[in-house]
Amino acid sequence: MIKIAVDAMGGDYAPQSVIEGVEQARDKFSDLEFMLYGDPTAILKEVKNQERLTIIETTETIEMDEEPVRAIRRKKDSSLVRAAKAVKEGEADALFSCGNTGALLAAGLLIVGRIKGVARPGLISTLPVVSDQGSCFNLLDTGANAENKPEQLYQYGLLGKFYAQKVRGIQNPRIGLLNNGAEAHKGNKITLAAHQMLAEDESLNFIGNVEARDLMKGVCDVVVADGFTGNAVLKAIEGTASGILSLLKEAILAGGLKAKIGALLLKPAFKMLKKRMDQSTYGGAVLMGVKAPVVKAHGSSDAKTVYYTMEQIKTMVDGNVIPEFCDYFAKLKAEEENNLDNLKK
Amino acid sequence: MIKIAVDAMGGDYAPQSVIEGVEQARDKFSDLEFMLYGDPTAILKEVKNQERLTIIETTETIEMDEEPVRAIRRKKDSSLVRAAKAVKEGEADALFSCGNTGALLAAGLLIVGRIKGVARPGLISTLPVVSDQGSCFNLLDTGANAENKPEQLYQYGLLGKFYAQKVRGIQNPRIGLLNNGAEAHKGNKITLAAHQMLAEDESLNFIGNVEARDLMKGVCDVVVADGFTGNAVLKAIEGTASGILSLLKEAILAGGLKAKIGALLLKPAFKMLKKRMDQSTYGGAVLMGVKAPVVKAHGSSDAKTVYYTMEQIKTMVDGNVIPEFCDYFAKLKAEEENNLDNLKK
Repeated sequence: MIKIAVDAMGGDYAPQSVIEGVEQARDKFSDLEFMLYGDPTAILKEVKNQERLTIIETTETIEMDEEPVRAIRRKKDSSLVRAAKAVKEGEADALFSCGNTGALLAAGLLIVGRIKGVARPGLISTLPVVSDQGSCFNLLDTGANAENKPEQLYQYGLLGKFYAQKVRGIQNPRIGLLNNGAEAHKGNKITLAAHQMLAEDESLNFIGNVEARDLMKGVCDVVVADGFTGNAVLKAIEGTASGILSLLKEAILAGGLKAKIGALLLKPAFKMLKKRMDQSTYGGAVLMGVKAPVVKAHGSSDAKTVYYTMEQIKTMVDGNVIPEFCDYFAKLKAEEENNLDNLKK
Repeated sequence: MIKIAVDAMGGDYAPQSVIEGVEQARDKFSDLEFMLYGDPTAILKEVKNQERLTIIETTETIEMDEEPVRAIRRKKDSSLVRAAKAVKEGEADALFSCGNTGALLAAGLLIVGRIKGVARPGLISTLPVVSDQGSCFNLLDTGANAENKPEQLYQYGLLGKFYAQKVRGIQNPRIGLLNNGAEAHKGNKITLAAHQMLAEDESLNFIGNVEARDLMKGVCDVVVADGFTGNAVLKAIEGTASGILSLLKEAILAGGLKAKIGALLLKPAFKMLKKRMDQSTYGGAVLMGVKAPVVKAHGSSDAKTVYYTMEQIKTMVDGNVIPEFCDYFAKLKAEEENNLDNLKK
């Protein structure tokens, strides 16, 4: 049985959409069990069937605009902090929230805890590809850190590779480094050094630098970026996609009856477009590098997105992703120490 | 008379589209005169009418993939270097190229030269807005630098303000700082420090941090970013827009006759969408902070884009943008020195 600790109070439509998605996942997967942290009255109002749901009363909620680390430290009885503690203490296998991203990241780092050997956990997002080269790509770090060192970017290559292999089933994922030009000599101090480290690791299928222009063409499976740039690129993609779609809608509305009939005839095409651009089926963003799956879905997530995120969490737990990470990094660490010892002799 | 030095050999469709655009601009604006640098045979093949066109023979061309600084130093008789030298020596008022961006930036910095007081010239691009809040926004630096210091970001605020005022006619442009969150406490070391400097300058209409997600909504008129992030965001916007439009085309083609009729009925709507997303009417990207307008149009520019870029250059020269910059920075420098002197006393 897989136990998922759910911050039932986080998100724009919480607890309603959270509970609805949780129930859909429970009904679909017989090995999922949920611990719902929050206001029991509000939660019970939404619950249709309590099978494999445990409701745990908490008295506080972290709001969307609260300063993350302070909120985590002060609101000990918040749904998020209590859910994170359940994961830390082994009562649950994974942590889920649609609430304040910064607070979830802080809870992941400070409560669930970093994997030994991982310098800086990174947030990995899944984004759509418009060509036939696969259906999506992963981008990390999309905002767990405001700045990164080259070694951290190198580790993102390893983290992203594991994720793509275990969760997306890609045997030998193509890793690219987000840079300001495709040529190997391009970049700033950090990407130049990271490029070298990524290229030197023969266990990685490193394809070199990639430009933000080519990500949606499916140029690679995993894109490594520092948290500041990754965050900006993620938001630029989201903003542009939603901007164009709203512009299209506006143009159709302005076109009168003729345009309306045209739009009707194009309904299947628009549906396909929307489906290809839809991120919800990919689940949420995962904080890679902490001791359990810590997964964030969009604040505006509907039940469907919550459902898919639960499926994603199940895939991570079933695939033993985190324990295998831990082993991998423990080995890396041991090898490094071994090398150091040999150097000292 | 305004004299524009044109690298006639730079760009995917050069010299053809360059010459065609130049002739359109010459026919439209009676005060424009062009110096065309390149292979006379290839240029003359395209020229319809030599009025206000001077052809200057050069024997070398800088290719798209050449290492910029080396190319500038070695290819002294390239169309780009010769055109840049004409600007430096006062024979021409502005420099234009559709060729290798890095080489044009290098020519701007090393040949045309930096304005005294500007620490790092930045490349300013113009991008479309999908809401009613204005029709476009400016983003700088979109790639002249691979990294920037806080003072340089602060100066981008000043440079961007001047540009928006003088070229776009916005009296009090709203300046935003691209960051990983809207709140003032968000950011990395560089954006946090830049935020403070921008906020402290009362001459700037600084609206605070902006997120990449909101740029196309017209959240501000000028977006300040370091060259690495600005470049990534520019390319992410371009890549997403072209990805969605090609996906839409694909969906329509896959929809058979019904979809084709639908698309026909929606032709005006698609046209409006394309027009709103079209960057060509905004002209090219300008290297702000050098002693003359140095303007880069896309490698794939057609004649129309070249034409609009010439119009943009005319606006810059007519508006006296660069000399006023120079004065402004000279005054700033003088004030700083004055303050230092006072401190010493």
